[in-house]
Amino acid sequence: MALIVQKYGGTSVGNIDRIRNVAKRITRYYDQGNSLVVVLSAMSGVTDRLIDMASQITKEPNKREMDVLLATGEQTTVSLMAITLTSMGYPAESMLGYQVCVRTSGAYGRARILDIGKDRLQQLLDQKKIVIVAGFQGEDQGGNITTLGRGGSDTSAVAIAAGLNADVCEIFTDVDGVYTADPNVCKKARKIDRISYDEMLNMSSLGAKVLQIRSVEFAKKYQVPVHVRSSFNEEQGTMVVNEEKDMERVVVSSVTHNKNEARITLSRVPDVPGVAAKVLRAMANAGIIVDMIIQNTRKGNMTDITFTVSKTDYEKALEIESKVGEEIGAELVAGDSNISKVSVIGVGMRSHSGVASTMFDALAKENINIMMISTSEIRISCVIEEKYTELAVRTLHNVFDLDKE
Amino acid sequence: MALIVQKYGGTSVGNIDRIRNVAKRITRYYDQGNSLVVVLSAMSGVTDRLIDMASQITKEPNKREMDVLLATGEQTTVSLMAITLTSMGYPAESMLGYQVCVRTSGAYGRARILDIGKDRLQQLLDQKKIVIVAGFQGEDQGGNITTLGRGGSDTSAVAIAAGLNADVCEIFTDVDGVYTADPNVCKKARKIDRISYDEMLNMSSLGAKVLQIRSVEFAKKYQVPVHVRSSFNEEQGTMVVNEEKDMERVVVSSVTHNKNEARITLSRVPDVPGVAAKVLRAMANAGIIVDMIIQNTRKGNMTDITFTVSKTDYEKALEIESKVGEEIGAELVAGDSNISKVSVIGVGMRSHSGVASTMFDALAKENINIMMISTSEIRISCVIEEKYTELAVRTLHNVFDLDKE
Repeated sequence: MALIVQKYGGTSVGNIDRIRNVAKRITRYYDQGNSLVVVLSAMSGVTDRLIDMASQITKEPNKREMDVLLATGEQTTVSLMAITLTSMGYPAESMLGYQVCVRTSGAYGRARILDIGKDRLQQLLDQKKIVIVAGFQGEDQGGNITTLGRGGSDTSAVAIAAGLNADVCEIFTDVDGVYTADPNVCKKARKIDRISYDEMLNMSSLGAKVLQIRSVEFAKKYQVPVHVRSSFNEEQGTMVVNEEKDMERVVVSSVTHNKNEARITLSRVPDVPGVAAKVLRAMANAGIIVDMIIQNTRKGNMTDITFTVSKTDYEKALEIESKVGEEIGAELVAGDSNISKVSVIGVGMRSHSGVASTMFDALAKENINIMMISTSEIRISCVIEEKYTELAVRTLHNVFDLDKE
Repeated sequence: MALIVQKYGGTSVGNIDRIRNVAKRITRYYDQGNSLVVVLSAMSGVTDRLIDMASQITKEPNKREMDVLLATGEQTTVSLMAITLTSMGYPAESMLGYQVCVRTSGAYGRARILDIGKDRLQQLLDQKKIVIVAGFQGEDQGGNITTLGRGGSDTSAVAIAAGLNADVCEIFTDVDGVYTADPNVCKKARKIDRISYDEMLNMSSLGAKVLQIRSVEFAKKYQVPVHVRSSFNEEQGTMVVNEEKDMERVVVSSVTHNKNEARITLSRVPDVPGVAAKVLRAMANAGIIVDMIIQNTRKGNMTDITFTVSKTDYEKALEIESKVGEEIGAELVAGDSNISKVSVIGVGMRSHSGVASTMFDALAKENINIMMISTSEIRISCVIEEKYTELAVRTLHNVFDLDKE
C-alpha cells in the first residue's frame, strides 16, 4: 500500500511489445494495492529521429521550437501506454508536462524544474487512477513547452516523487543497477546494493550514465529513496539513499571513467588578477561547460591555466581561447582531446587517509602518467591518456578490492 | 495590410521540402505587410500511422488517449514549420491547441469548438510574429486534449479567423478549388469562382471532401470569407461567401456524389407511435450517424422504414436493427451497401421549379433506378445503385449545363 513513482527509460518502452511488458509490470504493482505514478521517456531512437528531422532544415534550429518538437516523443509513449493499460481494463490516464504543471526555468533544451503541481496528480491518485506522466518536459512561466535535457525523465520522476512525498522512486532501466565500475570495461565490476546520494552525485557527474545528475540532486534535497533497477527482470537493483553508518567502512565504493573530455592549456600567461576569470568567462559566454580547472604558478609572474571541456565543445573552445590567449599575452594555447578522466569515489574517504597515494601508486606501477588531478571530499579524479582508460579502471578496481562485498 | 488566416493541409506539408515551399509562400505574404496566422495539419500519412500504432495494441483504443496520441501529428508540423521560418530569419512561433485556448466540447475524436482565446494570438500578432497554430486539436473544460475529427484543421482555421475577425481565411489544399463535380468522375467539371455558404454546406455534407462541414457552418455563422485554393500554384481558387444576387441566376451550381453510404430497411413494421423513434434511437445509442430517413405508409397499419448510414457502420447497424426489428415485430430487416447518393445543389432552386423533374427524367433516360429521394431548400439527393454513380454524375452535369459559365 505504498505510493510509488516509477520511471521507464526509452529502451524499456522501445516498441509495442515492450510497452505491453511494462504495462503488465505496472498492473502487478497496482493489483497489490499501491498508488502509482509512472513517468516515461520517448521510445528509444525517437528523440534522435526528431533531432535528425530538424537538422534537415537547419544546423541551428530555434530552441523553443525544438522543445515543442521533442516533446512529441514522450507524448506518444504516454498515450500508447495509457491505451495499453485501459485495453487491459485498468484505469490509466496520461498527463503531459504542462498538465501536471511541471514548472521549469525558460532555458529551452536544458530547463530546470522549479516546481511540481501536485494537486492534479493527487486528485487522480485519489480516484485510483494509474497516472502516466510524460517525462523530460515541462512548461515555463510564459506557457512555453520546455525540455530538461538528456536523461531529464529521471529528474521528472524524482521531482514528482518529491512533490508527492512518495515512498520510493523506482528508476527502471536497461542495466541491473549501479556498478562498482563499468562492467563493459571491468569484468569484476559488482552491483552495489546501497549507495549514498553524495556518491551517486559524484558518479553521475563523472560519466556513469545511470542517472541524470539533477535527479540525484533532487533526490538528495528532498530525501527521496531512489531504486535503480532493470525493467527486464525482477531482481533488486541499487538503492540510492541517505548516507548510512555502514557505508563509511567502505573507503572506496566505485571507480568511474569519462572519455568525453578534452583538455585546453594556456601556457605562460601573465599572472595578474582577472586573467583566469577572463579565460573562463569566454567559455561561459559561449555556453561551454568547463569541468576541471587547474592553475600552477611558475617562474615569477607567469602561470599556466588548464581546464577540461566535453569533446563535442573542444574545437569551438580551442578557437575561442586562441583569441583570448592573444589578448592576454599567452605564449601558447594548445589542447588535447585524447584524454580521459578516471575517478574513485567513496564516502569513507572523509575519515580515511591514504586513498590518493594508493591511487597514484597503482597508476604509476602501470606506467600511466597522471596529467591533471582534482579532488573533492569523497572523490579523487585523474586525467590520463585516453588509451590507458580501461587499464586504469581495472587497476583501481583491484587495488581497492571492489570485487569483494 | 490584411489580417489573413491560412490553413495548409497534410499533403501541402507532407515532407521537409514541401514545408520549405509553404514557408516561402508564407514569407511572401508577410513581406507584403500582412498579419499572418497559419494553421497546419499533420504531415500526410502521419495520422494514419499513429492510428495504426494504436490498433496494434487494441481494436478499440481509449478515446481520450487516442486524442493525446493524434495531437502529436500537428505538434510535429508546427514546430518544423516554425524552425524553418526562424531559420530563414522570420519571427515565427508555434502554438498548440491548448496554448491558443481552443476550447472544445469533451467529445474525444470529434470535439466541437466552443470558443477561441484570441488574446494570446493578438498579442503575438502585435509583436509582428507569424503565428503557426496546430490545427485539429483543442482542450476541453477539464484540461484534456481533444481532436476535432478528420478535416478538423479547416474548422480550426475558420474559427480562428472568426475569433480574430480576419479579412479572409485561405484554405490551401491539393486541389485548385471547388468544382461543379468531382473532376475524376466528370471531365467537364469546372472550377467555381464564387459559391455561397449554403451551397458549400450542402456539398460538404454530400461527400465533396474539400472542406470539413463544420468549418463552413462556422464561416457562415461568423461571416468569414473563405478562399479554397491550391498550395502548389498561385491561381485564384473558389471564394465561399455570402449569397449574392448573381448566384440565384444559376439554378444548379454543382453535382456531388457519395459512395460511402449503405441502406437499411425494416419492412412491414407496425405503424404505431414511437416505432421510428425506437429504430433511430438504437443507432444514436451506438454512436452511428444516420443520414437519409424515409418512411412510407402502406397496407393498413404496416409501414417500411428505410435509412442510410456510412458504409463503415453498415455491419454494426444491421446487427443492431435486426434485434430492434424482432422487438417491434418487423417482417424483415435487410440492407444494401452497394448504393451511392447523387445530389444537385444550387441556391437558384429556391426560385426555380422543375429541377427535380429534370433530374429524375435525366436519370430515367439512362435507366438508372432511383431508390430513395430526399430534398432540402437548395438540394435534391437520390440514392441509386453504386455502379451507376459516375454515369449519373456526368448525366446531371450535362443536363444542367454545368460546363458553361
